Amino acid sequence: MKRHLLLIALSLCAITLQAGRIITDSIRSTTLRATVKYNVYLPSGFERSQDQYPVVYLLHGLTDTYTAWDQKGCMREIADELIESHEATPMIIIMPNAGGPDTRNTPNGYFNMQGWDYEDFFFNELMPTAERKYRAISDKQHRAVMGLSMGGGGSLGYALRHTDTFSSCYAMSPWLNSQSPQPGPGGEKNRMYYTVEAVHQHSALTFIDNADEHVKENLRTVAWYLDCGDDDGLINDTFEFYKKLRLAGIKAELRVRNGVHNWEYWRHSLRQALPYASCHFGK
Amino acid sequence: MKRHLLLIALSLCAITLQAGRIITDSIRSTTLRATVKYNVYLPSGFERSQDQYPVVYLLHGLTDTYTAWDQKGCMREIADELIESHEATPMIIIMPNAGGPDTRNTPNGYFNMQGWDYEDFFFNELMPTAERKYRAISDKQHRAVMGLSMGGGGSLGYALRHTDTFSSCYAMSPWLNSQSPQPGPGGEKNRMYYTVEAVHQHSALTFIDNADEHVKENLRTVAWYLDCGDDDGLINDTFEFYKKLRLAGIKAELRVRNGVHNWEYWRHSLRQALPYASCHFGK
Amino acid sequence: MKRHLLLIALSLCAITLQAGRIITDSIRSTTLRATVKYNVYLPSGFERSQDQYPVVYLLHGLTDTYTAWDQKGCMREIADELIESHEATPMIIIMPNAGGPDTRNTPNGYFNMQGWDYEDFFFNELMPTAERKYRAISDKQHRAVMGLSMGGGGSLGYALRHTDTFSSCYAMSPWLNSQSPQPGPGGEKNRMYYTVEAVHQHSALTFIDNADEHVKENLRTVAWYLDCGDDDGLINDTFEFYKKLRLAGIKAELRVRNGVHNWEYWRHSLRQALPYASCHFGK
Amino acid sequence: MKRHLLLIALSLCAITLQAGRIITDSIRSTTLRATVKYNVYLPSGFERSQDQYPVVYLLHGLTDTYTAWDQKGCMREIADELIESHEATPMIIIMPNAGGPDTRNTPNGYFNMQGWDYEDFFFNELMPTAERKYRAISDKQHRAVMGLSMGGGGSLGYALRHTDTFSSCYAMSPWLNSQSPQPGPGGEKNRMYYTVEAVHQHSALTFIDNADEHVKENLRTVAWYLDCGDDDGLINDTFEFYKKLRLAGIKAELRVRNGVHNWEYWRHSLRQALPYASCHFGK
Repeated sequence: MKRHLLLIALSLCAITLQAGRIITDSIRSTTLRATVKYNVYLPSGFERSQDQYPVVYLLHGLTDTYTAWDQKGCMREIADELIESHEATPMIIIMPNAGGPDTRNTPNGYFNMQGWDYEDFFFNELMPTAERKYRAISDKQHRAVMGLSMGGGGSLGYALRHTDTFSSCYAMSPWLNSQSPQPGPGGEKNRMYYTVEAVHQHSALTFIDNADEHVKENLRTVAWYLDCGDDDGLINDTFEFYKKLRLAGIKAELRVRNGVHNWEYWRHSLRQALPYASCHFGK
Repeated sequence: MKRHLLLIALSLCAITLQAGRIITDSIRSTTLRATVKYNVYLPSGFERSQDQYPVVYLLHGLTDTYTAWDQKGCMREIADELIESHEATPMIIIMPNAGGPDTRNTPNGYFNMQGWDYEDFFFNELMPTAERKYRAISDKQHRAVMGLSMGGGGSLGYALRHTDTFSSCYAMSPWLNSQSPQPGPGGEKNRMYYTVEAVHQHSALTFIDNADEHVKENLRTVAWYLDCGDDDGLINDTFEFYKKLRLAGIKAELRVRNGVHNWEYWRHSLRQALPYASCHFGK
Repeated sequence: MKRHLLLIALSLCAITLQAGRIITDSIRSTTLRATVKYNVYLPSGFERSQDQYPVVYLLHGLTDTYTAWDQKGCMREIADELIESHEATPMIIIMPNAGGPDTRNTPNGYFNMQGWDYEDFFFNELMPTAERKYRAISDKQHRAVMGLSMGGGGSLGYALRHTDTFSSCYAMSPWLNSQSPQPGPGGEKNRMYYTVEAVHQHSALTFIDNADEHVKENLRTVAWYLDCGDDDGLINDTFEFYKKLRLAGIKAELRVRNGVHNWEYWRHSLRQALPYASCHFGK
Repeated sequence: MKRHLLLIALSLCAITLQAGRIITDSIRSTTLRATVKYNVYLPSGFERSQDQYPVVYLLHGLTDTYTAWDQKGCMREIADELIESHEATPMIIIMPNAGGPDTRNTPNGYFNMQGWDYEDFFFNELMPTAERKYRAISDKQHRAVMGLSMGGGGSLGYALRHTDTFSSCYAMSPWLNSQSPQPGPGGEKNRMYYTVEAVHQHSALTFIDNADEHVKENLRTVAWYLDCGDDDGLINDTFEFYKKLRLAGIKAELRVRNGVHNWEYWRHSLRQALPYASCHFGK
């Protein structure tokens, strides 16, 4: 009986024959004087091959950590399915933590800020280490960056200021601009203050406003994709950025679907983002 | 500072203005001699109104419980979004447990089986009680049934044998047929045995084979929708059932998307199922 | 042989069992002092029933005529399919000509302009005549307006200034605003001048700017849907209008897909628009 | 005035900056003793570059000709849009006529049949000539075949028996199997007789039934995609073929959307097919 029933049970379970896996790793950063955790998605067949793979950096939002894309975003299921149907290229996907080890009291964000030079860490420490360790093809043509909310703003910021590093950038509901924050009554500046201040200082809108023709020419070598829900509070800035790109002669994709600032929206975004990145690998 | 930063934080959070809520309820069943838990989704505005609502029964699969559609299926987010954009009608959604209170040792399934007359419980106890309590419009024209895997088969079984009860039926990756199981070496029959046996006895394929013209005429009063992933082990039976419906002159919808037997598939199915049910309310 | 081969041939042809049909009709307008042609889509079963139907007004663009939605937009195939799968309600769809009988030399446009009080004609002559003749349910709850480009702007203009007439409005790539045109060197004003001038005078942007709270309250009784391609030159005004609606507390849907100002985009829009209108009938 | 109005008019027209073009060419076939016309889509930038391009063969159905994909299928708009957004690779697309110059009295079909060895013509004459003339990359890794109905069956037949020629095959509503036709009362065999007989003799179902392990191994080097509407009369054979492929251990994609055997369905299919082919170029 057992074998018979087992067979039935199996056919009722979620089985993908070509399943990738997610492992948790960490890196000791001298820049940050902290240990930063990250998840890595390795596609089916990774261990059995000696191949090198394209690499995607997939960034989480303000209130989440490096586990969010796995646990809330179902990124493994989505990547498995897209790779299995050849809609996406087999690739490794790196999901680093934006905050420190004690996520309530340490800084948080993808840009350099006081006491937390995360962008330096990202490009000088995380990228070379992880790409060597997980056999990434380490060139612009095989590297993409994407993320949601603060991670969408982070993706834009990275791709705007490192045009020789990423072939494409997919920003979901991006937090790409902010007013300068006000310190507290006693002038105190808490963790959130610094995060907001960093977003303000790295505004994607301001960046385009200040770009000269040489910078614009470089921006045209990256493929840009903006994706935001129609009921998302960040849609105005998203559209504003899109308009500036177009005025500057920089081609970009824009999509607006039904939705708010939530995972239901971003899971679907990821289904579009991985094929989009794949299309630009090797070009 | 706090107010300013709070405002920014809020715009980065998943806020739907028109959010429904899920409450957990239970019913003491004399038929089953057990207490059965269920979740109910109440749409935004339910408490403030005296309105009656259409009702959907949303059934879980073999290895899950009444919480699965909420916790794994994101049903609240999906229903909120569809109702907000008017793609779905405001409705209540009832998600009952298919198994007993001790889900490892008690029976499990939507049909009547030895010591577990769940179908009797469903129609005679759960439906009248829950629909009265939560202000459902208690007629066929405002009632739909849907579910995944064992719950997809349950939905079909219910709608096939209660054509005066549901206006539409949406089956996701339905487990709608099974061979008769073999007892164990000593003739023992475990929990899984009875579940499989009940599916076998209530095969949707056999039901159509045996349907006379009068039964078929009744089946034509229900709107049928079958939805199964191309890499799902249950697609053969799903297609077989579709073919039998068509041969019997019973109109049905069929969709096959990329996917396996998993939540990533069913979350998208739900996005289609709630509007489909809505289209048939009041018809 | 013939029967056998015929059977094969038939199965290779585009056959919808429930096919609606399109008929061409015309109305003599005393307002316009012209005869205006229009197409009417009648759903499958129209002739055999005595039922009344909801009605959609589907408006064409600047360079087209009343035949465009049929010949370029494939509206019959799309409506048939959506109604067959119950995604859209059986409805009649009226597609009037925006210009005069001699489309090269007569006025063109949906608003009142010098010598061409089309809006008066539309509401006082076309609507009552056609709705009576084709058994429309003549109330707001069963009437929708939609269109593309100049017809998208026309739809918005009609729904903005006749909030008691339409339950929903779906604007595709709408031409909803324009600068005031300049007359020619000798002060001459050609056909295009008057069309542009009418769009300028009926700007949807200006309308929202000038709306007081009473007007806004009425606008909230209509369901608004804006849909424009990301590479369409009209996307800036579309987004601007969306932003104004939201600021005024008027709920609206916005979608941006990949696309330009062409029929490939609008055919897909229609697939969304007819279900959207259906959702709002009878509400 | 003119410049001002012209600007407005332009923004209301369907302008894609990166527009490909379609040219009509023909080839004198010694095999067929006929001149066969074909359309070729050349992507934007083709003339200005010396690049070689991947090539897609896009086949029409029984009752159409080489112009159908352009005139009814809107293939240029679709290819332009997909290439512009990088969802598809820049490619050339060849659309040959399946019938003779006098399409009412000459043979019709993609396989060899009495007096019409089209398959020989296709591989020995059309492919080498057109690929040289239009700078195709002439290898399996950069060549795909796709088509609708009789052209869907043709695509399958070609890819099944020429596994070293195409990297992928996308069959839309494929006519992939047929019973043997009966001659007329006097034993006469008309044009349709020979077409049906050729489909019968080249049945894709029979092909898989007869495939040994070596053949299956070759079939696994092609990417297969089947796509058929749920209300299409050909869905049964499509599903049967899918089932046989899976049983034979040959991976394939299957999609079923809402639809019948018509252009509304195939236009959407093409939107999926060109990216699918692109994914497999260079692999």
